[in-house]
Amino acid sequence: MPGNTFGHSFRITTWGESHGKALGVVVDGVPAGLELSETDIQKDLDRRRPGQSEVSTPRSEADSVEILSGVLDGITTGMPVSMLVWNKNAKSSAYDYIKDIPRPGHADLFYSEKYGMRDHRGGGRSSGRETIGRVAGGAVAKKLLSLVGVEVFAHVIELGGVKAKQLSFDEIRLNVEKNVVRCADPQAAEKMLEQVNAARLEGDSIGGIVEIIATGMPAGLGEPVFGKLDADIACAMMGIGAVKGVEFGVGFECSRMKGSQMNDPFIINDGRVVPKTNNAGGMIGGISTGLPIICRIAVKPTPSISKTQKSVDMAAMKEIDLEVHGRHDPTIPPRMVPVAESMMAVVLADHMIRSGRIGPDSLLV
Amino acid sequence: MPGNTFGHSFRITTWGESHGKALGVVVDGVPAGLELSETDIQKDLDRRRPGQSEVSTPRSEADSVEILSGVLDGITTGMPVSMLVWNKNAKSSAYDYIKDIPRPGHADLFYSEKYGMRDHRGGGRSSGRETIGRVAGGAVAKKLLSLVGVEVFAHVIELGGVKAKQLSFDEIRLNVEKNVVRCADPQAAEKMLEQVNAARLEGDSIGGIVEIIATGMPAGLGEPVFGKLDADIACAMMGIGAVKGVEFGVGFECSRMKGSQMNDPFIINDGRVVPKTNNAGGMIGGISTGLPIICRIAVKPTPSISKTQKSVDMAAMKEIDLEVHGRHDPTIPPRMVPVAESMMAVVLADHMIRSGRIGPDSLLV
Amino acid sequence: MPGNTFGHSFRITTWGESHGKALGVVVDGVPAGLELSETDIQKDLDRRRPGQSEVSTPRSEADSVEILSGVLDGITTGMPVSMLVWNKNAKSSAYDYIKDIPRPGHADLFYSEKYGMRDHRGGGRSSGRETIGRVAGGAVAKKLLSLVGVEVFAHVIELGGVKAKQLSFDEIRLNVEKNVVRCADPQAAEKMLEQVNAARLEGDSIGGIVEIIATGMPAGLGEPVFGKLDADIACAMMGIGAVKGVEFGVGFECSRMKGSQMNDPFIINDGRVVPKTNNAGGMIGGISTGLPIICRIAVKPTPSISKTQKSVDMAAMKEIDLEVHGRHDPTIPPRMVPVAESMMAVVLADHMIRSGRIGPDSLLV
Amino acid sequence: MPGNTFGHSFRITTWGESHGKALGVVVDGVPAGLELSETDIQKDLDRRRPGQSEVSTPRSEADSVEILSGVLDGITTGMPVSMLVWNKNAKSSAYDYIKDIPRPGHADLFYSEKYGMRDHRGGGRSSGRETIGRVAGGAVAKKLLSLVGVEVFAHVIELGGVKAKQLSFDEIRLNVEKNVVRCADPQAAEKMLEQVNAARLEGDSIGGIVEIIATGMPAGLGEPVFGKLDADIACAMMGIGAVKGVEFGVGFECSRMKGSQMNDPFIINDGRVVPKTNNAGGMIGGISTGLPIICRIAVKPTPSISKTQKSVDMAAMKEIDLEVHGRHDPTIPPRMVPVAESMMAVVLADHMIRSGRIGPDSLLV
Repeated sequence: MPGNTFGHSFRITTWGESHGKALGVVVDGVPAGLELSETDIQKDLDRRRPGQSEVSTPRSEADSVEILSGVLDGITTGMPVSMLVWNKNAKSSAYDYIKDIPRPGHADLFYSEKYGMRDHRGGGRSSGRETIGRVAGGAVAKKLLSLVGVEVFAHVIELGGVKAKQLSFDEIRLNVEKNVVRCADPQAAEKMLEQVNAARLEGDSIGGIVEIIATGMPAGLGEPVFGKLDADIACAMMGIGAVKGVEFGVGFECSRMKGSQMNDPFIINDGRVVPKTNNAGGMIGGISTGLPIICRIAVKPTPSISKTQKSVDMAAMKEIDLEVHGRHDPTIPPRMVPVAESMMAVVLADHMIRSGRIGPDSLLV
Repeated sequence: MPGNTFGHSFRITTWGESHGKALGVVVDGVPAGLELSETDIQKDLDRRRPGQSEVSTPRSEADSVEILSGVLDGITTGMPVSMLVWNKNAKSSAYDYIKDIPRPGHADLFYSEKYGMRDHRGGGRSSGRETIGRVAGGAVAKKLLSLVGVEVFAHVIELGGVKAKQLSFDEIRLNVEKNVVRCADPQAAEKMLEQVNAARLEGDSIGGIVEIIATGMPAGLGEPVFGKLDADIACAMMGIGAVKGVEFGVGFECSRMKGSQMNDPFIINDGRVVPKTNNAGGMIGGISTGLPIICRIAVKPTPSISKTQKSVDMAAMKEIDLEVHGRHDPTIPPRMVPVAESMMAVVLADHMIRSGRIGPDSLLV
Repeated sequence: MPGNTFGHSFRITTWGESHGKALGVVVDGVPAGLELSETDIQKDLDRRRPGQSEVSTPRSEADSVEILSGVLDGITTGMPVSMLVWNKNAKSSAYDYIKDIPRPGHADLFYSEKYGMRDHRGGGRSSGRETIGRVAGGAVAKKLLSLVGVEVFAHVIELGGVKAKQLSFDEIRLNVEKNVVRCADPQAAEKMLEQVNAARLEGDSIGGIVEIIATGMPAGLGEPVFGKLDADIACAMMGIGAVKGVEFGVGFECSRMKGSQMNDPFIINDGRVVPKTNNAGGMIGGISTGLPIICRIAVKPTPSISKTQKSVDMAAMKEIDLEVHGRHDPTIPPRMVPVAESMMAVVLADHMIRSGRIGPDSLLV
Repeated sequence: MPGNTFGHSFRITTWGESHGKALGVVVDGVPAGLELSETDIQKDLDRRRPGQSEVSTPRSEADSVEILSGVLDGITTGMPVSMLVWNKNAKSSAYDYIKDIPRPGHADLFYSEKYGMRDHRGGGRSSGRETIGRVAGGAVAKKLLSLVGVEVFAHVIELGGVKAKQLSFDEIRLNVEKNVVRCADPQAAEKMLEQVNAARLEGDSIGGIVEIIATGMPAGLGEPVFGKLDADIACAMMGIGAVKGVEFGVGFECSRMKGSQMNDPFIINDGRVVPKTNNAGGMIGGISTGLPIICRIAVKPTPSISKTQKSVDMAAMKEIDLEVHGRHDPTIPPRMVPVAESMMAVVLADHMIRSGRIGPDSLLV
């Protein structure tokens, strides 16, 4: 079972490596009649793009997207939407020294064990550049979701041990892009940035937590007992590189709560029965409750660090000290924000179509 | 997309409701030539079975499994293995009073919103009894995994705020079934049991954390970039009722670590290159590293509590005070142990077959 | 990839062997709110049932279906519908003599090559009894289709070289069940029956052609370029045992036609543009045209014959003369009628749901 | 369920329209370690390419393929192989006159009914150019199959009513590319070409039959009861535009045969039990028998003809006389040869991997 296709009724197939010719995605299941241009896609690719600040790798890539199919006169046709981005600034020779040395925390060794070889140039497909296809596909999903009033956004809530204070959705939306760490709490953002810079100076890296929110959700999405909405989202999130944990609503904290604290009571609101609180994070029994989805993911520190680490030269088969050079981010969460949003959007668009809330074939009929 | 089938090359399709005639599973993709009897299945069903101690519901069910197909003279034939368990002790009338009242923390309301109706008898398919099919299917998966030296086991590591101390795999295996809370640390187990009993007396319930471990793992399982092993496990775990979070290795703690702390260095061991530590929890880049898989799930407190809660009588459309009677567990994690093991086993068996480590058609050729 | 699940949005998983304990099906994706009882299912199972006439095996089975899940108070709940039929009249010892002798035309040898063993009792899962699950699942699909005005029916149009004359849909519906060969042309039916009886007397068997029709079809079903409606139907039909060919509309005859003869011209009818003729058989470009689907399948003669055939005793590894005893049909097409209808119905119900013409979750909302 | 992905363990996702920017395919599931270059792909694309003779459209396209990912230093890496071909000679304005007029025999009207619009430029994605992705993907499949000794080839056996005589596999391989109609019988080929030219002069088109053969097959491929090898092939073949029927071995002729004629007797050959004849066409019970696969498909005459036909101007909503101009083939079967081979190869490569005969991850380990 190859693993480069995600989704059922809305489906992305991504391809490409860090130092190959190009990277891209085929988005299948886009209903006909959606206005879609390269601008819609570029907006999110630009948020993912490297080289924009001190918190990301200096690799310089325009990451300009081309739509190759599925759109006619600015409108989707129901046919698969193929998109690509050319690699321009790959410096493959910079990776020659690690051809035989697996980098700790990276997938290098395990690609070799699985495939009998690996593309060592910039990590090949296990590079963060692989997410270009996800973000391009996610941008289409977001456009679709906007038609039914669903908005997906994410922000960094913890970085290097610095926690953001709790903010309203409006504050998050307003402030998240105002600083390079994508934390909507300006005081915390400042301290986070200090942590990033301190780690970089030490040749080290730091981890953090990203929260992804979806508002405007209808109740009733998700398919028990194995296609539950939270199960699908967990799969999508854990499939992003560097993510080591995922939780919804109160998350792991639920293990220390009593039923009387955890249960969201029901009230009547505007003539509808709804949960009064959202400890559940927008899903119960794997079905959306109509309240916002609240999801958090734990992102490990960037495995590429210039501090000395123990590894093995597999050609000589001897243990060595390794310093990882090359261009890399000192921390991942800020750039993970658009990626995590994209995967959430893909899952939600998929379930919107599966459940008939967005027509599977066309917005025009 | 209906949601009652899980897996690709090894696949379970479960069916049945808490108060229907029976519950069961069809296991497809079992290679021919596996010794399999009802005893293999019953062993795990008995661990899941209710009515065994003060920590579980008093509903009395033998949960005796019948294998209906796919086995000839005690050996699997490569054909689908269908198994069922008859419901015997359903007391549906006990649920009449909640026909129009959604129970907080339960999926009742959201089944109604999705399906336009719900089976209110004991929660219908959103009941914990739904997991019978998972456990029966998981028992087949475990049997298969034992052929390649993989063992899956789980234990309760936190309950009602009481944490177990860290134990060796051998201590866990040895002690986990020695107490009713399935905690391998006897001192902690005693305190956990006090918490359970205190909660029950208050008419309340408590949550906890279950850790699932797989030993004997080969390196190389998992299919980047969307069929990663941890993504598939996260999907399997989050699809179990009451689970609100999942993490691997150091999990959420990674967000507070530096790269130099998090990265597992490589060493040479017995002529092979392997990670020296297992912060990653057995997978990097979505591929198994050869070290044990370490997965933890957060389990919320049982939503059924007899303490008064706010809900709505939907027939009268008015807010009411609700006390949930009926038979239910005061805490879920102890009974979740075999269920979580089962889902882990299904994912691993699937990937073992996909990757060719277990022959897809037959163990005999 | 195990092969016992068929369909996407409406999905059947079948299980069971000719001489096992039982056979059955899990139908997933049935929307909530469908009236469904065992009577609905039994009706078609009775048409498939053996022992009813001289054209079928004398094996005596009531084939009484039990619905085990997914139905509450006569209404589907959106949960999987599990159904089973117990085997009662299996005479396994009658097959002992062929334990080591593959029967020509049967899958015996190839099951052994694939699975390293085979269930020789009555052909195991390669028996025609395997279709019980298909027919039970198809009956649910037919019920669903009836809600949107689609009717599926089939008839024998050729048997042992005797061809039925062309009849109107009404004549077919009216007459097909009036004779044991299920041919709606009474004169032809009589001659067909003579062929069957002559073959039986010789210890031989005959083949034929079944035509499957779906009326009331909407335009627009089918998903280019790989999920085309005709591709899915072809897969469903070719997956039935003994089928060696499938064609639509004019079928193979198209290869001798000119474009000016083959093309169905467009006219305006009742304000809509429609094809004037139906050479295409109801689908063009893999999408339904709104005209009836016309599908024909070639059914080979029953492989079990009592005439002497060449085979090999694999225990002694020597060529032998074989006469196949046991109970078997002298011809298959009459009993294939309900089976082929069922598979057509499953495909159409699946596409109706996929395309949103039948709500995926519920008929009640 | 979008329909642009085909296969399970070996999987192609195709995209692109006749007059879009480009067409292409993402091939997922290619094991690492396969030598693969653009030359391997181009070879088959050149056989599919238009403008090469009087039997194909004069549209001039080089159809030069670019491999964009999944290959490093001429060797596949296990990552998805993305390939594209740029459209260069699209003359979209030539299709303006049919913007509102559905062409009989084409999918135009039904795309409009399904998607609420259509890409009228050269048929959009329902054009024969869509098969570029199939052929590129099939070329990868063929390369893989060659590693296990399986060869797939096809030839035209009937065109415009002219039948080729039966030839040995060697004669077919040797002669098929020697004439423009791709018929291995030179006398028949000449007559076929006369038919093509006569049809073209009349402004008409002709149909035919293509036979696809796979030699070197192992026994044991195919997954009962719904993933049978013949069912999967039938799906693949019927999913090619213009195909109206598919049959295996003796095919529809089986309906006129007796069991004693149809059954392939078993003999011992080289110490193995094998069928003596191949009436079954290489599969029984949906499992490969080890004899060559013999598949035939009925291909309808090209729907684009310049003879006057009846259609409807949907803007004016009135019936009109239509003559289809533009560039099109007077007959399809010769150019279908590489397309049908490709789809057969994709199915076989998929089953080879599923069954473990070709390693799923790597040829190197």
